[in-house]
Amino acid sequence: MAGVSSLPFPASVYAARLERAAALAADGGFDAIVVGPGPDLQYLVGVEGDTIERLTVLLIGPSLAPTIVVPRMELAKVRSTAVGELGLTVLDWVDGEDPYALVSSALDRVTRVGVSDALPALHVIPIGERLGVRLELATPVLREGRMIKDETEITELRRAGAAIDAVHRRVPQWLRAGRTEREVAADIAEAIVAEGHRTVEFVIVGSGPNGADPHHEVSDRVIDDGDIVVVDIGGAVPSGYNSDSTRTYVVGDPDPDVAERIAVLVSAQQAAVDAVRPGATASEVDAAAREVLTAAGLGDAFLHRTGHGIGVSVHEEPYIAPGNDLVLREGMAFSIEPGIYFAGEWGARIEDIVVVTADGCERLNVAPHELTRADG
Amino acid sequence: MAGVSSLPFPASVYAARLERAAALAADGGFDAIVVGPGPDLQYLVGVEGDTIERLTVLLIGPSLAPTIVVPRMELAKVRSTAVGELGLTVLDWVDGEDPYALVSSALDRVTRVGVSDALPALHVIPIGERLGVRLELATPVLREGRMIKDETEITELRRAGAAIDAVHRRVPQWLRAGRTEREVAADIAEAIVAEGHRTVEFVIVGSGPNGADPHHEVSDRVIDDGDIVVVDIGGAVPSGYNSDSTRTYVVGDPDPDVAERIAVLVSAQQAAVDAVRPGATASEVDAAAREVLTAAGLGDAFLHRTGHGIGVSVHEEPYIAPGNDLVLREGMAFSIEPGIYFAGEWGARIEDIVVVTADGCERLNVAPHELTRADG
Repeated sequence: MAGVSSLPFPASVYAARLERAAALAADGGFDAIVVGPGPDLQYLVGVEGDTIERLTVLLIGPSLAPTIVVPRMELAKVRSTAVGELGLTVLDWVDGEDPYALVSSALDRVTRVGVSDALPALHVIPIGERLGVRLELATPVLREGRMIKDETEITELRRAGAAIDAVHRRVPQWLRAGRTEREVAADIAEAIVAEGHRTVEFVIVGSGPNGADPHHEVSDRVIDDGDIVVVDIGGAVPSGYNSDSTRTYVVGDPDPDVAERIAVLVSAQQAAVDAVRPGATASEVDAAAREVLTAAGLGDAFLHRTGHGIGVSVHEEPYIAPGNDLVLREGMAFSIEPGIYFAGEWGARIEDIVVVTADGCERLNVAPHELTRADG
Repeated sequence: MAGVSSLPFPASVYAARLERAAALAADGGFDAIVVGPGPDLQYLVGVEGDTIERLTVLLIGPSLAPTIVVPRMELAKVRSTAVGELGLTVLDWVDGEDPYALVSSALDRVTRVGVSDALPALHVIPIGERLGVRLELATPVLREGRMIKDETEITELRRAGAAIDAVHRRVPQWLRAGRTEREVAADIAEAIVAEGHRTVEFVIVGSGPNGADPHHEVSDRVIDDGDIVVVDIGGAVPSGYNSDSTRTYVVGDPDPDVAERIAVLVSAQQAAVDAVRPGATASEVDAAAREVLTAAGLGDAFLHRTGHGIGVSVHEEPYIAPGNDLVLREGMAFSIEPGIYFAGEWGARIEDIVVVTADGCERLNVAPHELTRADG
C-alpha cells in the first residue's frame, strides 16, 4: 500500500516521457504497450498504482492516445497525479465488471503487444488470451527511458545519496558489542527517515557469520567484540528516487588477515568504479572488480554480480553482471558493490551508486570506504 | 525485502500441502505448476522469496519431484526453511547463468503448464517462450489449498484478529481535534507491533473528506471537531497470517443524519455476516450488504465489493463481489467490509474477518462496530 502521494515533477516531464515511450514503442515495432503498477507506471505518470488483484494499466502506443484503465475507487488518487493534468483517456470500472474487456476495446486490431516487467501473471495471462496475441516483454522499450537519467533525476539521486551517507556516518555510534542486530537496525531505520528519506526500503545488519549471507537482513544475534558487520541500507526520498549504500564495520580490533582481505575488496570496488565510462560494457565493469579479487585468491568468495541500476526502483536495468554486453551511456545510474563471503565466518561488501558522466562517472556515495571501526 | 525468517509450522504441514497441490494439479490436467515468490510460495514451503529480477520458482506436478530453482546467494536462507527439511530438489544458479534453462530442463515434455498469480511478466514471458507452451493461470489449483484454512491456520487468524481488535480499542485515545492523520497513524503503527504483529501492513486514517476515498492512506490533514474518521488497519503476526479490520470513529458529536447513515452501514455489515454459511455464494453475501444500503437510498455510495479472502496475503480468494458464483465452504476466511462514500464530505466503512463454520461463520473481530466516539 505504498503509492506516491504527490507529484514529484511538473506534468510536462511526464508528458515528455509518455511521448518518448510511444516513439520508442514505434521504433521497436510494437502496436501497444501495457504498463502495470510498479516503477514503469511511476516513471511514466507519477503514480505507482497499488492494487494487485484489481487491474490498473496504462496503455501507450504509436497510434494510441495514452489511456489508463483503473478501478473507480482508485480514480480520485490517480486524478491527483500527472494523469489529471495530462488529460489521459480514463476507462474506469467497478468490482463485478470485466476490466479486460476495456483493454481489448482500447487495443483494437493490434498484433505486437508488449507488457511491463512487473505486470503479474494474474493479468498477463487474461490480457494475452483476450487480445489473442503472444505478448512480449516491453523491457527494451521501457528501460530506455528509465535507464538514462536526466539532470532532474540525477539531482534526486544525489539527494538520496547524501541522505544515506549521513546515516552511514552515524552508524559507528550505534554498533557495539552486546547489542543485537535488530536494535542497531531500529536506530538506522529511524535515521534513514530523519536524514531525509520518505520510506525505509531495507536495512541489512549482518554481523559475524550472518555477514556471510549476502541477503541476510537482520536477526536477534548479539554483536560480539571483533565482529565484522555488513550494513546495507536504503530508502526513497520524497520524489520516489532511491538510495542504496553498503559499508563494512568492525567492532573493536579486526583480525589482521581479515583487514587485509577487506582492503583488497575496497580496491576491487575502486577498480570497478574506475572502469565506468560511456562505451564500456556492463560486463567489463563487473570484470574489473572480479579480476582484482581473483588475483588475490578471493574470486570464489564473490558470490554475486557487481551491481544493479537504481532510480524509482531499487533494482532495475542496467545490471552490472558477467555476460551483460550492454554498452554504458551518460546518465546511467547503478550500484558498484562487490562483496566477499566466507560461510559460517564473516562477509564484507562495499557499495556506492555511480552516475555515468561524459568521461567517467560521478560517485554519489562518499562516506569512508575502508573498514570502519565502530565506537563499541 | 520482507521474507519469513523462521518456519511457522512443522515441515510435515508443508509436505502435506505440496502433496495436495500436486494432486490438485493432476485433477486440473496440469503437467506442471510454476510457483513464483509471493503468498503461494509462502503457503507451500514457508518461504516468501524476496527477489524480483533474479528467478526463484518452485516447480510441482503430478509426476515431478518438487524442485526449487533459486539464486545461489539465496540458498542459505531457503535451506533454513521447509525446503531444507523437505528434501526438495534444488537447482541453483549464479548471476550470468540462464535460470530459464534450469526450468526447461526440469520440465521436459510438458504440455499444460500453470503459473502462480504473482509471477511477474519478466519471468512469465521467457518461461512461456522457453517451454514453447501457452501458459495458463494455476489459480484454480493453488487457491484450493489456500482458500480452505485448517485449524492451525484459523488459530493464527484468530491471533491476528485479537491483536488488531486490541489496537482498535486504543484508537479513541489517539484521535482528537488538532492532531494530523499522520500523527495518529504513527501511534497506531506502534501499537500494531506492540499488540503482537510482526509487521505493519497498512494504516489508513481517513478523516473528514479523506474518508470518502476508499483507498486514501494518510495525510497531514489536521483532524477537526465533528470529523468522521475511517481507520482501516492490519499487519502480519509472526507466522505470516494477516489481520485487517476497519472501524469508523467520530471526534466529538456527530451530525444526526451522518450517525443515522452509519447505523444503516452497521446493519448492512451485519446482514452480510448473517448471510455467510456453507452453500451460500460469494455474490449472495455481497448482495446481502448491498440490499440493505440500496433500500436506505445508499446503494450508489457503496463503491466497492464487500470483501476479500485473507491468509498469508491480505487480499486473496475468495473475493466477495457481485457476479462471483463461488460457493462458500467451511474454513474459508474473508473480510466483510461494506462502506459508504460521499465525495468531498465524508466516508465510513466497517470491516471484520469471518471464518465459515459448519452452519454459519465465526467473527474474528469483535471490537464495537457502532460509530465510536473518540476521547478528543
